[in-house]
Amino acid sequence: MTEPALQDSEEFQHHLREIRELLARKQTLEDLIHRQQRVQHQDLVESITHRQTLGWIKRKLDRLHSADIARILEALPRDQRQVVWDLVRADKDGEILLEVSAAVRETLLETMDTDEIRAAAETLDADEIADLAPDLPPEVVEDVLESLDQEEREHVRTALSYPEDTVGAFMDFDLVKVREDVALEVVLRYLRRFETLPDHTDKLYVVDREDRLRGILTLESLLTNDPERLVVEVMQAKSLLTFHPEDDASEAAATFERYDLISAPVIDAEGRLIARLTVADMVDRIREESDAEILNQAGLREEEDIFAPVMRAVRNRWAWLAINLVTAFVASRVIGLFEGTIAQLVALATLMPIVAGIGGNAGNQTITMIVRAIAMGQVEPADLWRLLGKELGVALINGLVWGGIIGAIVWLLYHDWKLSLVMTAAMTLNLLLAATAGVLIPMIRQQLGRDPALGSSVMITALTDSGGFFIFLGLATLFLM
Amino acid sequence: MTEPALQDSEEFQHHLREIRELLARKQTLEDLIHRQQRVQHQDLVESITHRQTLGWIKRKLDRLHSADIARILEALPRDQRQVVWDLVRADKDGEILLEVSAAVRETLLETMDTDEIRAAAETLDADEIADLAPDLPPEVVEDVLESLDQEEREHVRTALSYPEDTVGAFMDFDLVKVREDVALEVVLRYLRRFETLPDHTDKLYVVDREDRLRGILTLESLLTNDPERLVVEVMQAKSLLTFHPEDDASEAAATFERYDLISAPVIDAEGRLIARLTVADMVDRIREESDAEILNQAGLREEEDIFAPVMRAVRNRWAWLAINLVTAFVASRVIGLFEGTIAQLVALATLMPIVAGIGGNAGNQTITMIVRAIAMGQVEPADLWRLLGKELGVALINGLVWGGIIGAIVWLLYHDWKLSLVMTAAMTLNLLLAATAGVLIPMIRQQLGRDPALGSSVMITALTDSGGFFIFLGLATLFLM
Repeated sequence: MTEPALQDSEEFQHHLREIRELLARKQTLEDLIHRQQRVQHQDLVESITHRQTLGWIKRKLDRLHSADIARILEALPRDQRQVVWDLVRADKDGEILLEVSAAVRETLLETMDTDEIRAAAETLDADEIADLAPDLPPEVVEDVLESLDQEEREHVRTALSYPEDTVGAFMDFDLVKVREDVALEVVLRYLRRFETLPDHTDKLYVVDREDRLRGILTLESLLTNDPERLVVEVMQAKSLLTFHPEDDASEAAATFERYDLISAPVIDAEGRLIARLTVADMVDRIREESDAEILNQAGLREEEDIFAPVMRAVRNRWAWLAINLVTAFVASRVIGLFEGTIAQLVALATLMPIVAGIGGNAGNQTITMIVRAIAMGQVEPADLWRLLGKELGVALINGLVWGGIIGAIVWLLYHDWKLSLVMTAAMTLNLLLAATAGVLIPMIRQQLGRDPALGSSVMITALTDSGGFFIFLGLATLFLM
Repeated sequence: MTEPALQDSEEFQHHLREIRELLARKQTLEDLIHRQQRVQHQDLVESITHRQTLGWIKRKLDRLHSADIARILEALPRDQRQVVWDLVRADKDGEILLEVSAAVRETLLETMDTDEIRAAAETLDADEIADLAPDLPPEVVEDVLESLDQEEREHVRTALSYPEDTVGAFMDFDLVKVREDVALEVVLRYLRRFETLPDHTDKLYVVDREDRLRGILTLESLLTNDPERLVVEVMQAKSLLTFHPEDDASEAAATFERYDLISAPVIDAEGRLIARLTVADMVDRIREESDAEILNQAGLREEEDIFAPVMRAVRNRWAWLAINLVTAFVASRVIGLFEGTIAQLVALATLMPIVAGIGGNAGNQTITMIVRAIAMGQVEPADLWRLLGKELGVALINGLVWGGIIGAIVWLLYHDWKLSLVMTAAMTLNLLLAATAGVLIPMIRQQLGRDPALGSSVMITALTDSGGFFIFLGLATLFLM
């Protein structure tokens, strides 16, 4: 990269703060001018101060790496973000649009006209254009495709033709091919004709005349072997690790992680080399997944622009709140069944949230562990009973220990040993329920071919709430009334 | 890698299932023999069947990549895991110990004697030994260090001298240095003397006689430039991206991700080259972090061996349950304050969990978003009011909408419009409380230099539970009694 890379977040924060200050100064100057309407040549003054500060910011931006400008844009409120975005060098627009979060990208694209967007897109590679395309207006995408040469256009079309969770959507078409019947010397001379090599070139791809992948020539073997030798003698041809465009992207990412790959070939059914995958895209994929998992656990639909307008934020969050409202309402109806009991012994109302709360917490522990084990392929149906046994054991111990403690406290508070026993029993039973559901829900969903993770936390909590209230108040009705 | 890599999880599952079957067959044969005590030459038969199945498994394992054997071990119950582990080729032990999860590593090490562990460790590089060291008995570490040559020992000691969350703990000492005053031709000849290059070698490090880093020679520029030219002419010397051993590992990982790095130099205060970082270690780091975040959200202390004995699982989970128990108890005492009110209007007991539940859900949405924004350096103290304003706006809308809906339902259930109003008001107020806390808690913690993420979910839930009960029952006492 030509621009200096920022080492640490202090450095980044420093640049960010400077830009914020410049923007603030620009603001105050403008206010000043607007307030004293009577000043002479106001427009002149304004435009000067304007040009100055903007000039400062521009020079700063020109020195920064696209990835860092992207972070600065994400960190700026919308109005200021707009000012900075207009100052960015046009040839950086494409890179930056790729780097920013989807939410922020939206806000940036909103303000660009077709020509600007086309100009930005044209600075990108085929696979990068494909990444951007879904967020662009269709007519613009068409324009951009027109502006590309035949081959590039083909590549973009290919990449766009695969769903976003497949290898096809992550393919990089920029790679170096060589023939097997030439000497390494020839390959070395061939490479010298390049200005630069494609990013993450750790291997060259050996293909025949029909473009079928014959083997892989790592730069390592190219550099460590005698130049007289032929490619076919030093290339790796057996047990090649290859991907197909329709392969699952997450599994490809896991494979990259497991075998510490830098790049790997993507071939079609006939074994013809289509493109390659690089570690950079796979790292992004890994990040996306864990982000999605975390946001999902917290009930957020997608990464949010922290400066998003209120209504957009509401939209991003309402779905989970609605679900949560329904489950909470169900739980509340369960309590409703026992209003008679509660009327006679109000202490039950006081204690019931404890039973539900602990159950939910324990259930989430179990289901999270099982879901992760399934994701890593560690669990198969045959393990059901073994896992169930373990989780029930854990639940029983926790129930007796924590339930016992709470039971004792209840006795101290209400001096009612039957109530204490009901409390302890209810907590134990609810923990057993949580453990059973925590194991069964994900394993059954897996059997049904569903994603075991999706909304698992909501489901288990709903169950342990309603279940907890029912068990506790039910036992109370049976033994205390 | 020499062993065939497994493309996808089907393939992995296939191998795993085969091994499980072999183990099962071995089991049944043994049972059979034990049951019919009267069979002749029992021992002979047993040993034969034994050797056969074990032989099959062993051959299978020899063909598998260490990373895959690690996954198989993680997927096997303890007894079977032990059988397989004993069959693994000794020279693979080290690699596998590095790959498996900490919990499983523990179970494997338990069964190895000092000599085996030393043998395993000796197959590893300095940085890998350093990764393993914390889990090994101190005396074994000493043994291993003894068995290393002077330089290796120094490297391990260096790596061990840095805390695990610093760059120092991830350093790879295996790299290629060159001088700046030689021609590329010479470098090329020099590289041919290597059998292999260090993993992830995408650049060579240009150092002077005092080992000070003068610049970086990428394989790209080595391969694309005229061999007659000098290293100094083609090397990158300006705005080098370098790390220091005491730098924060997470930030280093983020930097690798941001600039798509494969490897980067680690230098000391005098600018001397100590080691390098590679993308492989940084990817692992990224994975570790997101895993920790997810486990933490679910109240698990660490990644759990799904076949862990019950007591170990209990230990991994009790801390969070205890905290949860305390917060639930506090919430319950808050309700206790209003037992008089509830006694007069039991419906309150029925409805209060809804107020608390929605508040917790909304609070988690807010705090998760703020925590992530802080982690990405998008938020600074100056943004406090803007963010607070946005979140309060979202909370107000959600409160009025959802609170209104619930209020209407309450009216249908109890035909008490005052109760409906109290419900709507309480939900709105609790959502406002959740929004305020969701913004303030992480931003204050950041100001205090604490980790804004740690236990944030527990804190916000505790607050919205107690707060929700207090607001709802308080309003009820004021307006309905």
